Amino acid sequence: MKTPVSASSPATAADLALMQGAPPPPAQHVTLASWQEGPHNRWSFQHASEFVPTANLSRGDGPVFELPTDLERLDGLAIRGVACASTLEEFLSETYTDGFLILHEGRVRYERYLNGMTPATRHLLHSISKSFCGALTGEFVERGVVELDAPVRAYVPELWDSAYGDATVANLLDMTASVRFSEDYTDPASEVQAQDRAAGWRPRRAEDPENSYLFLRALVGDGRPHGSEFQYCSATTDTLAWVLERATGCRYTDLFADALWSRIGAEHEASITVDSAGFAFANGGVSTTLRDLARFGYLMLHGGTVDGFRATPPNWAARHRDNGDPSLIGSEIDFAVAYPNGSYSAGWWCTGDAAGTYYGAGIYGQFLWIVPEASLVIVKLSSLPRPLDPAATRDHREGFHAIVNALT
Amino acid sequence: MKTPVSASSPATAADLALMQGAPPPPAQHVTLASWQEGPHNRWSFQHASEFVPTANLSRGDGPVFELPTDLERLDGLAIRGVACASTLEEFLSETYTDGFLILHEGRVRYERYLNGMTPATRHLLHSISKSFCGALTGEFVERGVVELDAPVRAYVPELWDSAYGDATVANLLDMTASVRFSEDYTDPASEVQAQDRAAGWRPRRAEDPENSYLFLRALVGDGRPHGSEFQYCSATTDTLAWVLERATGCRYTDLFADALWSRIGAEHEASITVDSAGFAFANGGVSTTLRDLARFGYLMLHGGTVDGFRATPPNWAARHRDNGDPSLIGSEIDFAVAYPNGSYSAGWWCTGDAAGTYYGAGIYGQFLWIVPEASLVIVKLSSLPRPLDPAATRDHREGFHAIVNALT
Repeated sequence: MKTPVSASSPATAADLALMQGAPPPPAQHVTLASWQEGPHNRWSFQHASEFVPTANLSRGDGPVFELPTDLERLDGLAIRGVACASTLEEFLSETYTDGFLILHEGRVRYERYLNGMTPATRHLLHSISKSFCGALTGEFVERGVVELDAPVRAYVPELWDSAYGDATVANLLDMTASVRFSEDYTDPASEVQAQDRAAGWRPRRAEDPENSYLFLRALVGDGRPHGSEFQYCSATTDTLAWVLERATGCRYTDLFADALWSRIGAEHEASITVDSAGFAFANGGVSTTLRDLARFGYLMLHGGTVDGFRATPPNWAARHRDNGDPSLIGSEIDFAVAYPNGSYSAGWWCTGDAAGTYYGAGIYGQFLWIVPEASLVIVKLSSLPRPLDPAATRDHREGFHAIVNALT
Repeated sequence: MKTPVSASSPATAADLALMQGAPPPPAQHVTLASWQEGPHNRWSFQHASEFVPTANLSRGDGPVFELPTDLERLDGLAIRGVACASTLEEFLSETYTDGFLILHEGRVRYERYLNGMTPATRHLLHSISKSFCGALTGEFVERGVVELDAPVRAYVPELWDSAYGDATVANLLDMTASVRFSEDYTDPASEVQAQDRAAGWRPRRAEDPENSYLFLRALVGDGRPHGSEFQYCSATTDTLAWVLERATGCRYTDLFADALWSRIGAEHEASITVDSAGFAFANGGVSTTLRDLARFGYLMLHGGTVDGFRATPPNWAARHRDNGDPSLIGSEIDFAVAYPNGSYSAGWWCTGDAAGTYYGAGIYGQFLWIVPEASLVIVKLSSLPRPLDPAATRDHREGFHAIVNALT
């Protein structure tokens, strides 16, 4: 980023001298209260473990799933129809990219690191973490340890009287549980910020529950029956993680390492944030390298399993295609406007387009974009200034579509 | 540990079901208030990043320094003269070992993992971290960035009026700065516990300084002149780390990764805990794998540099031999009783024995034991019940001596 692509290129962490100085002066000091927001997140998303305690997700001692590289073909790719940019490089710069990779027909065709990120840097994935939780659920459904139709209270009796007690595991997985919950990331009075505080992601207040388990127990329903409507709610994924812990008798961190991360041929260890009870932040706390996330996407693209590397059981990888129900998504939400046949299931946003496109997405510009018909995986890790920004979301959608068009 | 070596074998983390249950019941819940103490440390020393935020220390992308393995020779080694045990296996079990490795004449002759540790597990090193800070100091002295004779206030003007302002960098390095400081780990009123709280290692109190920088600024002298006496003080190492940050203009975490960890041929990333200002806990916050610590020891044994892998500049690796001054150590302290010619310098305890033995040591049983004349490195990572225990220290000393005798 020594040579900005355009005059409006966003400032990098180095430009801003974030966390430089001993101690850093106030303007450069990224704190637990500020780390999620731009521009502080230009530094923090590559250093999440410096703000919140983390568990190590071991890659195990197996072989690395090698990704053949063939970079020439996309050098200087022009993309059309993207409001913010006309070349791929401009697109990446304008959208606060930290890491970007295109895996096409099994080969890495483009790989860029910006804003100080490197191939060994772990970057926070935010809600792409939910896609991992979906894959793990598949693993334990396959093993017969978890029943999708069973009520949550069968696994976690403490949730009997909470919003989730009579939801099914499938309701959690597909985000059709109903709960009184504001997912407004910018509202200090929202439940999602309260959950952050319980999980160690923001400074605690005296009245906050001590950990995520207690936070989840206190959530109440909103009167609608479960299964009647899509409701994107981060706490729903954490409840699913709790169910997995109780069903298996293992910590989520251990499940993740043993049943998923050590089996995908990852090159690097991953990490997941944990709260004061050791409970992982399943909905958004995973950090991985760019390439390791691409590996997971590639395995999903190929039915969950390739050459002995495994992300999900073979008959699970496409479950979201069959189980997502577009009629459950309110037609007014941005995703439904863009993809009228779209649905959400098992941690994935399913566009319902002809190419079978589906993706994992996280706030501030994290995307794992999978296009089965084009044999394409696009990974984009970013540090946008705001958690949700309709214009930025549109830019990303258009950018990915333009890349798919340029390649096929 | 399915088959205890003796009836008195200490309980493992698994035996105690530490951090099992969702949430863990109180007796099994390892907390920020309890994690350092036994038996909770049987789990926590392999999971330090779950309690305190950590910075990643990248191993870089260079080759691994391979350690040839030749395990047969020491199988069933009998050791004599050790109060607690008569075989190596008994010794390891009785002294709460998590990982143990003997590197003799360049080959791994013995390697054991206990209490759930694996070759990929990072284990907290406590004050062996100081030996790394000593090596890093050597690097920047060699580069001409730091002057050993310069006063601390020349680098950190904020320390002008503190205990350390008129100490020299060499006083910090060799622990001959004088400061009013109790290193009593078990006394809640001690400075070392107050430092823990400022560094995020224990629950904060309202009156605590917000971070380690502020903590160090508030320390005052105790009236003795610097350089007149050895005073083992953890804060002295952190002050040295602050000097290195100011002299180089880089964070200690970055210095550590760039100038040391990425150059020793480490197999795994390491981590170091950081406080709310992003300041690393140089005196005790490093976690590494067993083998990676052995690599560092092997490089020290061979003058700091082997085959392009580098721990220190060549003319620095033996500095502690020439600069340690036995006359500065109070004759009543345990170390001086055991080693009347012993001294401390540059992060190392130097025994002054004929074999040139020196070592890095951390509370609760961490040792990096280097015997130049025997071409021997012993690494022992443990989770003893108490931070300092004269009987346990004696057992370790005797155990290492017995191993050296058995091998030479």
